[in-house]
Amino acid sequence: MTSKMPLVIFTPSGKRGNFAQGTTILSAAREIGVDLDSVCGGRGICSKCQVLPVFGKFPKLGIESDPKSISSLNAIELRYDSKRGLKKGGRLGCQAKILSSLVIDVPSESQIHKQVVRKNPSERKISMQPATKLYYVEVEKPDILNPSGDIERLKTALMDQWGFKKLKFGIEILKSVQYLLRKDSWRVTCAVHSSSKKSLSRVIKVWPGYFGGPIYSMAIDLGSTTVAAHLCDLDNGKVISSSGIMNPQIRFGEDLMSRVSYAMLNKSGTKSMSSAILEAINALIENMCRECSISRDLIFEAVIVANPVMHHIFLGINPLELGQAPFALATASSLEISAQQANLNINTDGRLYILPCIAGHVGADAAAVVLSEEPNKFDKTTLIVDVGTNAEILLGNKKRILACSSPTGPAFEGAQISCGQRAAPGAIEAVRIKSDMKKVKFKVVGCDLWSDEDGFAAAIKPIGITGICGSGIIEAIAEMRMVGILDESGLIGSASQTGYKQCISDGRTYSFILNEKQDNLPLIKVTNNDVRAIQLAKAALYAGSKLLMEKMGVKKIHKIILAGAFGAHISPKHAMVLGMIPDCNLKNVSSAGNAAGTGARIALLNLSSRQKIERLVLNIEKVETAMATKFQTHFVAASNIPNAADNFPELFKHLSLPTENFNRRGSKKRRRFSS
Amino acid sequence: MTSKMPLVIFTPSGKRGNFAQGTTILSAAREIGVDLDSVCGGRGICSKCQVLPVFGKFPKLGIESDPKSISSLNAIELRYDSKRGLKKGGRLGCQAKILSSLVIDVPSESQIHKQVVRKNPSERKISMQPATKLYYVEVEKPDILNPSGDIERLKTALMDQWGFKKLKFGIEILKSVQYLLRKDSWRVTCAVHSSSKKSLSRVIKVWPGYFGGPIYSMAIDLGSTTVAAHLCDLDNGKVISSSGIMNPQIRFGEDLMSRVSYAMLNKSGTKSMSSAILEAINALIENMCRECSISRDLIFEAVIVANPVMHHIFLGINPLELGQAPFALATASSLEISAQQANLNINTDGRLYILPCIAGHVGADAAAVVLSEEPNKFDKTTLIVDVGTNAEILLGNKKRILACSSPTGPAFEGAQISCGQRAAPGAIEAVRIKSDMKKVKFKVVGCDLWSDEDGFAAAIKPIGITGICGSGIIEAIAEMRMVGILDESGLIGSASQTGYKQCISDGRTYSFILNEKQDNLPLIKVTNNDVRAIQLAKAALYAGSKLLMEKMGVKKIHKIILAGAFGAHISPKHAMVLGMIPDCNLKNVSSAGNAAGTGARIALLNLSSRQKIERLVLNIEKVETAMATKFQTHFVAASNIPNAADNFPELFKHLSLPTENFNRRGSKKRRRFSS
Repeated sequence: MTSKMPLVIFTPSGKRGNFAQGTTILSAAREIGVDLDSVCGGRGICSKCQVLPVFGKFPKLGIESDPKSISSLNAIELRYDSKRGLKKGGRLGCQAKILSSLVIDVPSESQIHKQVVRKNPSERKISMQPATKLYYVEVEKPDILNPSGDIERLKTALMDQWGFKKLKFGIEILKSVQYLLRKDSWRVTCAVHSSSKKSLSRVIKVWPGYFGGPIYSMAIDLGSTTVAAHLCDLDNGKVISSSGIMNPQIRFGEDLMSRVSYAMLNKSGTKSMSSAILEAINALIENMCRECSISRDLIFEAVIVANPVMHHIFLGINPLELGQAPFALATASSLEISAQQANLNINTDGRLYILPCIAGHVGADAAAVVLSEEPNKFDKTTLIVDVGTNAEILLGNKKRILACSSPTGPAFEGAQISCGQRAAPGAIEAVRIKSDMKKVKFKVVGCDLWSDEDGFAAAIKPIGITGICGSGIIEAIAEMRMVGILDESGLIGSASQTGYKQCISDGRTYSFILNEKQDNLPLIKVTNNDVRAIQLAKAALYAGSKLLMEKMGVKKIHKIILAGAFGAHISPKHAMVLGMIPDCNLKNVSSAGNAAGTGARIALLNLSSRQKIERLVLNIEKVETAMATKFQTHFVAASNIPNAADNFPELFKHLSLPTENFNRRGSKKRRRFSS
Repeated sequence: MTSKMPLVIFTPSGKRGNFAQGTTILSAAREIGVDLDSVCGGRGICSKCQVLPVFGKFPKLGIESDPKSISSLNAIELRYDSKRGLKKGGRLGCQAKILSSLVIDVPSESQIHKQVVRKNPSERKISMQPATKLYYVEVEKPDILNPSGDIERLKTALMDQWGFKKLKFGIEILKSVQYLLRKDSWRVTCAVHSSSKKSLSRVIKVWPGYFGGPIYSMAIDLGSTTVAAHLCDLDNGKVISSSGIMNPQIRFGEDLMSRVSYAMLNKSGTKSMSSAILEAINALIENMCRECSISRDLIFEAVIVANPVMHHIFLGINPLELGQAPFALATASSLEISAQQANLNINTDGRLYILPCIAGHVGADAAAVVLSEEPNKFDKTTLIVDVGTNAEILLGNKKRILACSSPTGPAFEGAQISCGQRAAPGAIEAVRIKSDMKKVKFKVVGCDLWSDEDGFAAAIKPIGITGICGSGIIEAIAEMRMVGILDESGLIGSASQTGYKQCISDGRTYSFILNEKQDNLPLIKVTNNDVRAIQLAKAALYAGSKLLMEKMGVKKIHKIILAGAFGAHISPKHAMVLGMIPDCNLKNVSSAGNAAGTGARIALLNLSSRQKIERLVLNIEKVETAMATKFQTHFVAASNIPNAADNFPELFKHLSLPTENFNRRGSKKRRRFSS
């Protein structure tokens, strides 16, 4: 029998099977598990199952096909074509019938698990497997002689027509179901949220008749300083809009521990901070919806990633325990709750998923970074450093992943720096020092020209120069060290010691001038205290990495990923010169941008990734820096800025660096830093 | 081996087993499935497992026991005894160890499935199996080297110590868990709501340390006219308080169909009615809590039963579809939702269960009546009539149950009656006519004396006589028929025709005076229109019963149960004389009181009863009176008030009734009633 039945080969999957003549392409695809989408369940309405039959001779496959290998366009296809237009050569999989052997191509937009298109090379591919999907059903009418509820008949339709096993309806749907079912002759489309068709699924919205979308979702990276959100199309995963705001909790404390104190010392401190962040997120959602002209009722899912303190405050949990050993989380597991419960202004029945936390100091944001960067996929060891007010450090490979957090403080974000500021227009973000000419040049956020280029003076006028941001201070200090303005211990030399007239006395120490006060532009300088602050921060970061390397027993890192919005702006070379990160081949140091945000987007669009990270997190080995005596040792040892030229001869071949130290007292004794 | 191990026999269950010396009684009981309670999990705190060892010679059992058969009181028992006192001879099952064979009695208060004590013979026994129970656990402390969330450790404790498989925590518990766990050294008591330990269970409240209760629940019978509520202890099922209020929706319409119209004709009609009933129920809950001095946060469960229209309006569902064929329910299934979702002011995380509806006109209240009266348990056929503004009628036996509803209208509740009123102080509730003396006597709600008894005039003064309530009008009309004041067609005769001077002309018809206007007491009479209204109502009720009997193919009813608060006040004899209910041996006609409320209480306290009624409801055959042409025929045929003496000779043996008809035109033609 089988040999007489037409052979159908689906591309690109290569799946094949023999089917009785007259079988629809959709049925054939379903039978052998080809990834072919459908919302309307084969009624010729949604066109999600559109396919391209391929005709011709395929001697290797033993197929010779032509337009007669498939049924001709039927009335439903002709109507669809005239109304909305079929693709050239396209057929509705639910209507076209197999007549003889042929090859059928399933274009990516017709695949259920279509891949999100990559906008740039660093962007992850995400295989679409959203929790919330649309399902069209035709529901039985009520029968006076056999009474049953409208909801029960809708349930039966979803179970019979789409294979759901256990369905739950929200109270809002109960209130509207009678009207909706009757509005378009007992035909409705349902948005169903489902971890799997076998588990409990929730009907979260019902539309009369056929509704083909689009429906949306929101990935939110809730950072201590900034909140970033991505609005995504739930069908194809495309990012419709990305936006960010400052975390309004900054007014309660710049760093996490200040906010924990605020919660401890103020009766309704947690509530105030929780309300502040919720209002801000809801305003952000509203703005993005307005800009994209979509209704927030069409946002059915959200994923939030955050560090543990932000995670707790967002949920209204007092973060007090996270401020003291043993740093116990209220909950470490992932959470899936209703948007309403979380007071999140997306669709009332929408669902919010929060990734699991790794430990009291390593949160759902770090879990998202693991999901995005997948250190567990490689044999060689990757170090991932998410630089922020608190740095999360992950070290791992196929066998093990270790995690810790390190209290770098806000210096890297421009705080605690005399001329420091956040990365905003007017902030110096890049610095170069030409040792031959003893000159400094810099770039300012909001202006594409270097300060020594023609037209800079005019271009900078409307922006001004307002300070130095994190990446600027890192580059400035690294450059200062590279050209010998700074000694190993972190002291700035005098003009006579260094040969730079920009080194001016500040009393006991020296400062280095980046920009002279002139033409309304202010004096911008790096003081020795600024250098100290960065030394403390980088030592904490470096010590964390070292601690993990030691725990794992690795001496050398193969690959370093700088994550976080800030990480995207750091120059890997300068970071390494400064000693923020361990030594590594510079070409293997990359920036992943907002990896936590990417991880949130992956969890948002792909259900299995949630299970994957939930399992993975349980096996991540947590290292508590506060408990590791070695951390203190590493920290102290990492305060110095080593002679970069020794470590990176290739970077410094054109330079001859002074080896002398600028200690005022001429002592070589290592200075100790106190916080 | 077994033969050497001591034999333990538990009473009253009779379960027995051999156990190793030193086994605690609680362990032994658990091993063989003896129904022995424990909240603290065998830590000697809760005393729920208190048992009475029985010593003596039991030759038949081969047991000879004495105090040495069991370990002597240990430190924990001694402490408990000094603090809270053990029963005489009582032992803590979790502490006392078996040393040699003996009999152990488990008193009812130590049984998990203890039975609710019956207050009166008609009260159902309810075997306690509440969905929400208390569980004491000791939780592991957090470990900095092995980070985990507080919730996860609490979860592990509940799973390990109590066998739960799948646990869910509300957001409010997440917010407080850290404080609660630390307050009493990682010991807490949890209220867990669980359909079964294998299914999803919800932790709905956590107390620091050991909390032994009591916790409460609320059964609510939401009727068209009145709302009755029972506050129950969730441990022993005792009714702590019962209370009732008028349904404030009466202002939107006296009967159900008026309210459906209100919802149809007014934009926010459903919302107004929904808010009104919610406010009233919440006020009722608050009042009952205040009276009993308990916090409403300690009410963890509620069960609501209601007719379909009330059911829908309560949930905020527009009842419009229930007002027109095919009378489709929005949902027929049982519902289990959070109190918060239902806006019910019990504990925020408390659960509300609503019984399933049977059909568009036969609601969760009828399902509750089935649960309470269990017609499915008997071979012989029972007719259950729940008399209200809408009457639900159930006919059933072991094999089949049929259900219908009949639109009796509000006449039985005193509405549409000229001197009618609800049953409240001042209302005539019982009437007797002495044919020999041609005198009327009556009783008034709020006064124990009959109107012809000494002292009545004085007793009635503070109350007054304000009208006739439902039971009063039924008795009045039945008595009028019995003594010949009324003819078969329902016409009141003149004074000369009847020999009663209380029959006075009203123009075209006659009225019958129950109370002459005198001493500030008003004139109370029964008009011929009143008789007509009752005839319509009773015909509808009778026709419904007849329809079911015909569908089932039974000629004779074995047993009739009058349910409903109103049913409790009707005299079965008068109801039968009037022809409200089919003929039946009078001694088999009983009143079940508020059977729907009892059913609600059963569902509240016993989980399996929920599954039982959910299954049973699916098999109840629904008969739609509006669709049955036979109903109209029965209705017309039932308008007359038959010559009661023919049907019930035993009731009338002392009377000689006139057989003449009082038709003004002398015609014998049957009058037709129009509504």
